[in-house]
Amino acid sequence: MRARVFVTLKPSVFDPQGTIVTDALHTLGYDAVKNVRQGKYFELEIDAGSEEEARRLALEAADKLLANTVIESYRVEVESSTERSVP
Amino acid sequence: MRARVFVTLKPSVFDPQGTIVTDALHTLGYDAVKNVRQGKYFELEIDAGSEEEARRLALEAADKLLANTVIESYRVEVESSTERSVP
Repeated sequence: MRARVFVTLKPSVFDPQGTIVTDALHTLGYDAVKNVRQGKYFELEIDAGSEEEARRLALEAADKLLANTVIESYRVEVESSTERSVP
Repeated sequence: MRARVFVTLKPSVFDPQGTIVTDALHTLGYDAVKNVRQGKYFELEIDAGSEEEARRLALEAADKLLANTVIESYRVEVESSTERSVP
């Protein structure tokens, strides 16, 4: 089963990478892009019996290892078999 | 309008960060996590008149700036949860 974990800086935390990317896009002429926030993305292949079990494991992994919960927040999505990310 | 861009290494490209995270999770007792791939995640706030316009801008931004298309692939989702993939 595949779980996706998104880790982003909390809204109150300054995101210098995102600011630089925003500026770079403006330089390229993409002024319609008003703001960019950058984060991390993890695809976890989990050997779990159920979607709930996979979600629990992914949440624990995010909380203990993948995110620094002082400054970052995370979100977990478990993919049902209908969806598959692109190679 | 909000677009989300996911950038991941192509499957044929070795992902040392993902390997380290997998090992760390095993050390923490999460043996059910068989594999981890790490990528980047961008949230773009786009001033666009339509969903299609936002998607087009996000795809261009990903192609020109956010992803190194030699070794990375990307995927774009526009807020309404419709999805479009680019290898």
